[in-house]
Amino acid sequence: MARYDFASDNVAGAMPEALAALNAANDGAASGYGTDHVTARAADLIREALDADAEVRFTASGTAANAVALACLAQPHESVLAHEHAHVCTDETGAPGFFGSGVGLIGLPGPSGRIDGTALTEALAQPDVSYRQPAAALSLTNATEYGTVYSGEALKALIDPVKARGYGVHLDGARLANAVAAGFSLRGIKALGVDILVMGGTKAGSTPTEAMVIFDRTLARRFDARLKHAGQLVSKGRFLSAPWIGMLESGAWSGRAAHANAMAQRLAALMPFPILHPVEANGLFVEMDEPTLERLRQSGWFVYRFLDGSVRFMCSWATTAEMVDELGAALKSIR
Amino acid sequence: MARYDFASDNVAGAMPEALAALNAANDGAASGYGTDHVTARAADLIREALDADAEVRFTASGTAANAVALACLAQPHESVLAHEHAHVCTDETGAPGFFGSGVGLIGLPGPSGRIDGTALTEALAQPDVSYRQPAAALSLTNATEYGTVYSGEALKALIDPVKARGYGVHLDGARLANAVAAGFSLRGIKALGVDILVMGGTKAGSTPTEAMVIFDRTLARRFDARLKHAGQLVSKGRFLSAPWIGMLESGAWSGRAAHANAMAQRLAALMPFPILHPVEANGLFVEMDEPTLERLRQSGWFVYRFLDGSVRFMCSWATTAEMVDELGAALKSIR
Amino acid sequence: MARYDFASDNVAGAMPEALAALNAANDGAASGYGTDHVTARAADLIREALDADAEVRFTASGTAANAVALACLAQPHESVLAHEHAHVCTDETGAPGFFGSGVGLIGLPGPSGRIDGTALTEALAQPDVSYRQPAAALSLTNATEYGTVYSGEALKALIDPVKARGYGVHLDGARLANAVAAGFSLRGIKALGVDILVMGGTKAGSTPTEAMVIFDRTLARRFDARLKHAGQLVSKGRFLSAPWIGMLESGAWSGRAAHANAMAQRLAALMPFPILHPVEANGLFVEMDEPTLERLRQSGWFVYRFLDGSVRFMCSWATTAEMVDELGAALKSIR
Amino acid sequence: MARYDFASDNVAGAMPEALAALNAANDGAASGYGTDHVTARAADLIREALDADAEVRFTASGTAANAVALACLAQPHESVLAHEHAHVCTDETGAPGFFGSGVGLIGLPGPSGRIDGTALTEALAQPDVSYRQPAAALSLTNATEYGTVYSGEALKALIDPVKARGYGVHLDGARLANAVAAGFSLRGIKALGVDILVMGGTKAGSTPTEAMVIFDRTLARRFDARLKHAGQLVSKGRFLSAPWIGMLESGAWSGRAAHANAMAQRLAALMPFPILHPVEANGLFVEMDEPTLERLRQSGWFVYRFLDGSVRFMCSWATTAEMVDELGAALKSIR
Repeated sequence: MARYDFASDNVAGAMPEALAALNAANDGAASGYGTDHVTARAADLIREALDADAEVRFTASGTAANAVALACLAQPHESVLAHEHAHVCTDETGAPGFFGSGVGLIGLPGPSGRIDGTALTEALAQPDVSYRQPAAALSLTNATEYGTVYSGEALKALIDPVKARGYGVHLDGARLANAVAAGFSLRGIKALGVDILVMGGTKAGSTPTEAMVIFDRTLARRFDARLKHAGQLVSKGRFLSAPWIGMLESGAWSGRAAHANAMAQRLAALMPFPILHPVEANGLFVEMDEPTLERLRQSGWFVYRFLDGSVRFMCSWATTAEMVDELGAALKSIR
Repeated sequence: MARYDFASDNVAGAMPEALAALNAANDGAASGYGTDHVTARAADLIREALDADAEVRFTASGTAANAVALACLAQPHESVLAHEHAHVCTDETGAPGFFGSGVGLIGLPGPSGRIDGTALTEALAQPDVSYRQPAAALSLTNATEYGTVYSGEALKALIDPVKARGYGVHLDGARLANAVAAGFSLRGIKALGVDILVMGGTKAGSTPTEAMVIFDRTLARRFDARLKHAGQLVSKGRFLSAPWIGMLESGAWSGRAAHANAMAQRLAALMPFPILHPVEANGLFVEMDEPTLERLRQSGWFVYRFLDGSVRFMCSWATTAEMVDELGAALKSIR
Repeated sequence: MARYDFASDNVAGAMPEALAALNAANDGAASGYGTDHVTARAADLIREALDADAEVRFTASGTAANAVALACLAQPHESVLAHEHAHVCTDETGAPGFFGSGVGLIGLPGPSGRIDGTALTEALAQPDVSYRQPAAALSLTNATEYGTVYSGEALKALIDPVKARGYGVHLDGARLANAVAAGFSLRGIKALGVDILVMGGTKAGSTPTEAMVIFDRTLARRFDARLKHAGQLVSKGRFLSAPWIGMLESGAWSGRAAHANAMAQRLAALMPFPILHPVEANGLFVEMDEPTLERLRQSGWFVYRFLDGSVRFMCSWATTAEMVDELGAALKSIR
Repeated sequence: MARYDFASDNVAGAMPEALAALNAANDGAASGYGTDHVTARAADLIREALDADAEVRFTASGTAANAVALACLAQPHESVLAHEHAHVCTDETGAPGFFGSGVGLIGLPGPSGRIDGTALTEALAQPDVSYRQPAAALSLTNATEYGTVYSGEALKALIDPVKARGYGVHLDGARLANAVAAGFSLRGIKALGVDILVMGGTKAGSTPTEAMVIFDRTLARRFDARLKHAGQLVSKGRFLSAPWIGMLESGAWSGRAAHANAMAQRLAALMPFPILHPVEANGLFVEMDEPTLERLRQSGWFVYRFLDGSVRFMCSWATTAEMVDELGAALKSIR
């Protein structure tokens, strides 16, 4: 049977802290659709972690959370700017278009998953014409799809010209824990001008849960109804929120992301193939030709070839030094 | 603090069998997006329970599962026939219209949540005109919103004329376990002509999960992509499927529903207010004026006034005889 | 061959003034997508007629114009309040749900097509709950579907509580010309609090064209792109706008509506069947049993049975006294 | 005032044959929503011209006609393959995503607007994965966006592998008249495997009208309702269909397109700038730097820079030899 350990950071189960909190939340009756005490507590913890006031909601799907967020920021006849390899552009099966009633996506280039500032400037300068969907929002991802981490300053440089035009800003934080573990400041996010943050729980090591954080409360009008309408409001809401209590109270949300990042560094140290992007979070992207990748798969390890042609190795909270070393040995043997 | 015990069957936590299976599924790596071994096993168990071949998928939201199902059965310019008080018509915030791109809903009358056959016949006989959304599918609910249970024969009588026109059939089984516990046959569902069944996990006593069962596989083309597009495909799919293993292998899915149904009977025996609908599953609907309901709430018990004006009491797997007796005493005191 | 003369006010062709203007607009080159000089002139004339500043656009379909307007006023998880027999509720094949991504419609009762104020008040007082689509806008129709005309005061009484909540107001003016001919003030519409008016051209006697008048310009952001996205921006825009020049410069838009209204009065005077609604515009609604209606159809006249069970007779700019008299004779003969 | 004569083929008015037929259709009453005798006659003429059985409908907007067609051929979680510079991909403000509920578009390369066969083969060979929208249909354009014309054989080579997979085929014929005038066979279209054709009226020289031709009648279920739902069914349908009677009975639809094509050849003969694509229909695309284009605009001629960086000159039925010669002189003067 193939080993999927490094195929993605979502192949791992849930960390003990998340699961314990989920189990602990099971007792007794709780009111439905996110109005319960567990959800209230989890939302408070998220506001504390961000040091910011915000509406907080929990969804089971990060794809949905991102898509609903974009639908709040751009009208159907408008577009969202994003890195051309951002998850919303390439790996969400058109969900932004579905939730946004045909909203457009404008892919921007940039090295290692970071949007190139000049490309953004040019996109913002495009004239409004009736036959194109003009930009109305910017979607950012941190850590990026290529395992790099934007600094606060780098994000601010991208966000400022966007906000200057009155456009909205979304931050896809599927791997925000890894960015935070790499030094990115949770407490600075609101000040950067982000309007809606999707704070990743699943890849950080939870059972399925993502937190939608709406800093701009004017976007949150009747948000429970919006989520229900979009099939994103579960009745037993406590099971989506409880894991956050476990992960945030213990510090494990970012603490275990630091471990995942460290495992990526350990793998980098062993990697016999050229590493194509800076290893700043929990992923490595290496150059590997197809016959070699096939040998790796034959040796029992399943990993994906990524959008830029590189082969991707992802670490998670569950990755152990032994796994890394086993993979390292396998990589050496197939070279 | 108000007691929500009887407010809904979704105020309860998860039954031990479901939670144990969820915890047991946590170990090791598993491939993503429902391609894992846990999900495969759960789907097999569901097919066994239904004694039928079918595509099976798991979603976190019953609203979404219903809405996606309806979107498979009716085109946007068509309509779905359903009881006028069906959940899809009244309690899902327009989700069918969202997932179905404006698909219509035609509400049919009928006593105690069961669709009146004559009304259905009349609706089916409506001429096609360009300015109305003609019927293309029928949505049924068993157990119904009013705690009654259709027999297989009763459903067949509704389904046959619908299938005769080549229209599709959806069965909302949010409380299917309660219907089954009341004698409705799981194994007969496919033969009735149901095309898509949403088999309820959450209200039966799971953490959030609903099983979409697509009997007509021609409707399932690229269904994973359909779910992902609709924000309904979580990456760590095992956490949506695992509870089913616990509930089905143990028999607790219907066994605990039988308990819930029995609790409703116990409450019926104590009920000092007129009961308005046959108590066939896990809910009671009683006549109660507003001042009396207010006194009940003042005494600490929160319940809802329902669509037909009755006051609803729902039992669940977690309802105990003590709770029923406590409520009974409270009801007596406010009369 | 059946005579459709009274089946609807859209069975008539275009009035001479509209057609002459369309032909006159044909010469030479004109820039596309509504940026041409003809469209600019028509928009100016409409602003003059309304004595108000506004964005003005032209569409070929009134259904689309209404649906786009509602999508501007209510979010997908919200609802629009309208008379239960309003065109948007009953005769547009679910277009509001399509353009509004599943936006809801809440039908309100009221005699002769006018919304009952108490019913509106009650609807506005409904509590926000996550599982229903709360009201966010009011859609009005003048003249109404039943040939009655709201006074400005009557509309104001409905609009004021809606605006007090910050909700939007749409006026479906498919038969606004008939209302104006009956004394309703065009110049007072903006002051009533209407945010978007759809000013009817087609039923007034044009080739297909409806004017969208957006008084609240904040709703008009990138409106050309919105219309293009929604399939409502034709390239040769002058052919949608030109008829307005002919109809407004000549006064025929309301002048010929006055004629249609007069024809309805003439028919009322001859009508041997009970008239069920006040005849204030260009339609009559009468009580007629099915065998009688069948005899009428056998005698060569095609008309529709309407939503309230009455039989509807519509007059238009093209209705002549002779036609009315012929119909009157036929009606007498089948009584 | 700028001259738009060559800016697009939609800057022209309507040809005399179209306008005469529109005026002729004005007399008397006609039943609504495309059920009238004028529309029936126009549909018959189109079937005759195509020598094929088909459902035929008329819309005012080509964008909408294309988008509705694509929504019939691909489900929302699927994609449509098209040339990367096809109108549906680049100039319709995301309308396909709106009408198709987020349906995807996959842009394919190819010289001069023709899809490269190898690129198509590769796209068809992509594996189905849940996180991408797989191809379900092919959209073709003839004449292409770059003024070239596919032969029947060339189209067949693209269509055959698509049909072999059971996928649908759409032909955007906004400039089909120009292709036909260049030798492409109308009567061969159905045999090529096209499922839905949008036969262009507007750019051919009509008032706004496009004909949707649905060869595969299984796609046309309740098509009037589909169009009404999508805001595309006008009540006075005769005004959309009548021009076709004038254009087809007279032969002017293709006859005047032949004139437009000839004007493009005349312009090509005079063109002092490098011509970048074969001139096979009614458009020229030339190399021109920005200062030169600015001089051209200063001299009073407005034309667009196109997607590939070339400057586009379009001829229409209304283009005269004098206009071409005047433009030729202007071009010479600014060189």
